[in-house]
Amino acid sequence: MAIKNAFYAQSGGVTAVINASAAGVIQTARKYPDQIGKVYAGRNGIIGALKEELIDTSLESDESIEALIHTPGGAFGSCRHKLKNISENAREYERLIEVFRAHDIGYFFYNGGGDSQDTAYKVSQMAERMGYPITCIGVPKTVDNDLPFTDCCPGFGSVGKYIATSTLEASLDIKSMCDTSTKVFILEVMGRHAGWIAAAGGLAGEQEGDAPHIILFPEVPFNREKFLERVDESVKNHGYCVVVASEGAQYEDGRFLAESGAKDAFGHTQLGGVAPALANMVKQALGHKYHWAVADYLQRSARHLASATDVEQAYAVGQAAVEMALAGKQALMPVIVREQSSPYRWRIGEANLSEVANQEKKMPIHFITDDGYGITKDCREYLQPLISGESFPPFDNGLPRVARLKNQLTEKKLKTEFSL
Amino acid sequence: MAIKNAFYAQSGGVTAVINASAAGVIQTARKYPDQIGKVYAGRNGIIGALKEELIDTSLESDESIEALIHTPGGAFGSCRHKLKNISENAREYERLIEVFRAHDIGYFFYNGGGDSQDTAYKVSQMAERMGYPITCIGVPKTVDNDLPFTDCCPGFGSVGKYIATSTLEASLDIKSMCDTSTKVFILEVMGRHAGWIAAAGGLAGEQEGDAPHIILFPEVPFNREKFLERVDESVKNHGYCVVVASEGAQYEDGRFLAESGAKDAFGHTQLGGVAPALANMVKQALGHKYHWAVADYLQRSARHLASATDVEQAYAVGQAAVEMALAGKQALMPVIVREQSSPYRWRIGEANLSEVANQEKKMPIHFITDDGYGITKDCREYLQPLISGESFPPFDNGLPRVARLKNQLTEKKLKTEFSL
Repeated sequence: MAIKNAFYAQSGGVTAVINASAAGVIQTARKYPDQIGKVYAGRNGIIGALKEELIDTSLESDESIEALIHTPGGAFGSCRHKLKNISENAREYERLIEVFRAHDIGYFFYNGGGDSQDTAYKVSQMAERMGYPITCIGVPKTVDNDLPFTDCCPGFGSVGKYIATSTLEASLDIKSMCDTSTKVFILEVMGRHAGWIAAAGGLAGEQEGDAPHIILFPEVPFNREKFLERVDESVKNHGYCVVVASEGAQYEDGRFLAESGAKDAFGHTQLGGVAPALANMVKQALGHKYHWAVADYLQRSARHLASATDVEQAYAVGQAAVEMALAGKQALMPVIVREQSSPYRWRIGEANLSEVANQEKKMPIHFITDDGYGITKDCREYLQPLISGESFPPFDNGLPRVARLKNQLTEKKLKTEFSL
Repeated sequence: MAIKNAFYAQSGGVTAVINASAAGVIQTARKYPDQIGKVYAGRNGIIGALKEELIDTSLESDESIEALIHTPGGAFGSCRHKLKNISENAREYERLIEVFRAHDIGYFFYNGGGDSQDTAYKVSQMAERMGYPITCIGVPKTVDNDLPFTDCCPGFGSVGKYIATSTLEASLDIKSMCDTSTKVFILEVMGRHAGWIAAAGGLAGEQEGDAPHIILFPEVPFNREKFLERVDESVKNHGYCVVVASEGAQYEDGRFLAESGAKDAFGHTQLGGVAPALANMVKQALGHKYHWAVADYLQRSARHLASATDVEQAYAVGQAAVEMALAGKQALMPVIVREQSSPYRWRIGEANLSEVANQEKKMPIHFITDDGYGITKDCREYLQPLISGESFPPFDNGLPRVARLKNQLTEKKLKTEFSL
């Protein structure tokens, strides 16, 4: 078997553990020098391949690659660039193959969500059509936990742990002071289409009356009156009310809560304003003193509080991707298979990229309580292992130590520039 | 020396480590059973004393008290209730003394900020006037780091560590994706009158070009044009711009940025909207894609990321308060004295409550760079040790373990109810 180089790229929104997947890919590839030559990483994801901006990871020390395991963000750069269908934009796929050919790349590892798995699949098709042999393996990643076939998505467990912990901690704060101060606290979390992250906030409450008292899911149409009634009830019964609100929370007609709030204030529709919109409702209708927080990027970059389970799984899918490629497999994505919940046992399985592409996994309806504001026992059982275990990074001078890569580009070989 | 009971109360905004001070008080008191009988804690702070709602901490196990060291929030409840001057409201002070007398309380430990130190001082004066012997010792606490005489305030170091870490982590996220996605990220932090917390965000940047690129302090008048220019410059030079904005950031004429923003949107003036207000400016003037986060209570309750230095100091001031009381001292507050910065050495000193009361310590002007947007080397040297060291709580099932107290009230002895 001839030695071929590999290409690895990060795609879409980054996570606290996507670099652990990168480490899984690179460290595993380094174990097979007779099969895999260099691992090139795309500078800013797939755009790096299109522009022939290939980071030569062989110039990074073993220590630097190891440090990726505890470094959040995307160490090689990621991008939001979705390749169109081959019929609409064959040119981009052809360019990819040209670049791969020029750099003798025989393995393509694409680390991302649904769109990226779709791209990886299309690259495998185009390569076949163009007669260029390349193994395409997807590496799953998404904080939204919305990929099909896999029990969970690397990246999600750590966000879940962060949101559950933050909900618990902030709740103790509000509870301390609710008699004379803030009575309602609203934490806005990510999840535009699926309520997985908001659901994880529910793990903070273990006993009757514990926060969070209300979870707002995108899956459950928002009803203003019912919501306010529940807030008031919680303040009456427990002295305070903690709300975990998904950024994707929406009215029955599909309007986002954030949208309406943000439009009033700033004349635009970017999401990210559910918390102030809800706070406004509470203030106007009930008059309770409130506070709100928007976790935004803090939640998906909080490597300092990553779930050990998540870190392990993120690494494992990177490692498995390389092993699958070396075993001659094609157009697959390693997935997490849950063998049992308690005690938690999981293993790596396989899914076909052709089936993964562009499917979204929503919360099962039996994970949400009948009133629409909480999580069920089944949901807890599902979520619990995913946030389990701690994987603290090393700290220097009070701050997490992060990888500082050289990120040196390899020399271009093609004569043509490519414009996106 | 006769055995006397002690009264301990938490006051004002709680912190990630105020319960460590409580543990310092209670554990130290338990070492001197021949001098200190029971430690009563005020239910919801000083209000508990006024209402004669005294939590009997002797009913809590040693394990529970030890667990306070890693439990955020105020375990006995805190409150925002400032006692007026004795001349205006002698009745409240008299009531306190009555309650203390009824429960044979000879020691008063008041854990709070400037207002609370003022109250502790006034109680000592009133007791003397009423001929009731009670030792009054303040225990410093404030995330705002604004107490005089002490080098730093317990509570601040942990917020600082949280904000510096969050800034670092989120910056890696933005940096990964700025080429095709978010270019400007704004993190709003606490600090209404002093920029200490925002300054701590500055520790995230170590090398030229590192985030944060702009810090907005309450101490430096906000200039819209200069700010936008700097944002654009940072995007041009580094590809992205990270802003850490104090909630107290204000225009030259004293208007809060948050105020104007919040008024537009919701018709009220509560602070907490600096980040969306700034995001709006960036969008309108520059058109860059942005994201913003508001850390709010998450920052002051984040015990999972507490600074070990802060936890130690919070405990130490609680312990020192009891030791000072037993040494016959009166109307003092233990303070942190910095002996040297590197390597960091500190010890406990003393300040007179009469002098502490109602003074606010602002950032020294030489801690802010000449352009008004960064921190100086002196500032770094001051802040660095305060965020140093980790003190992770134990975790169960993926979540921090917290103290679950009984918080049982002792029987009332007074016939009269007191209405606030």
